[in-house]
Amino acid sequence: MFKTICVDHVGIACKDLDLSKKFYTEVLGLSCTGEEAVPEQGVKTVFIPCGETLLELLVDITENGDGPIGKYIAKNGQGIQHIAVRVDDVQAAIDTTIEKGAAMIDKAPRGGAGGMDIAFVHPKSVGILLEYCAPAKK
Amino acid sequence: MFKTICVDHVGIACKDLDLSKKFYTEVLGLSCTGEEAVPEQGVKTVFIPCGETLLELLVDITENGDGPIGKYIAKNGQGIQHIAVRVDDVQAAIDTTIEKGAAMIDKAPRGGAGGMDIAFVHPKSVGILLEYCAPAKK
Repeated sequence: MFKTICVDHVGIACKDLDLSKKFYTEVLGLSCTGEEAVPEQGVKTVFIPCGETLLELLVDITENGDGPIGKYIAKNGQGIQHIAVRVDDVQAAIDTTIEKGAAMIDKAPRGGAGGMDIAFVHPKSVGILLEYCAPAKK
Repeated sequence: MFKTICVDHVGIACKDLDLSKKFYTEVLGLSCTGEEAVPEQGVKTVFIPCGETLLELLVDITENGDGPIGKYIAKNGQGIQHIAVRVDDVQAAIDTTIEKGAAMIDKAPRGGAGGMDIAFVHPKSVGILLEYCAPAKK
């Protein structure tokens, strides 16, 4: 068994990172932290704390715009690409999800941004792209 | 001026409310509260507390599936339709947004589910459907 703790972050696919950052900082009065390029996933991310949840701005940095975020925007336009729930144990969450008959994209935890272990549930199981995350075990 | 407090809720457009509820309760171990039909908006909503944020499941209840959620799903499939940030004053948030040169859909607060005052920012300003909400003033 595992415990679902909170909404850790909401992933927002952006076309223009500077324009989006400007809105969240100048209009909403929030602060940007942790700008980080993740070349192997073809994205740059910025985290914006908002209460206990982070807004995660995501922008494609591939040459041809064909990374996961580039493809998402080509299909859907800018929008809210995924939700991540913080759990106490990513492997237990994966195991429970499969036991209950739902499908996982990741059947074992993998490393994500910010030192987290992450795993994605298959959208066919829940209708959205849902991520489980927890601070990586040492 | 106004203060942005937290992510109040994330609105998730669902095709089959019972199937979605089953995942969030049986797999994630969360509880459903406040199932409510809002006929004038053509939706039924269910709130699922997850930490300080609510997951708001939204399903179309119009005869022809042409309410806002039905139209969203016809265009995008199931997905995360909007984010609502809790603010301390919806009217002040509206005023600040317009002063900063961004566009609002709602130029005055209106009543939303759960006794909240709400107002939507125009997606052209921020790339997503963003709601401001606060408990309604007496």
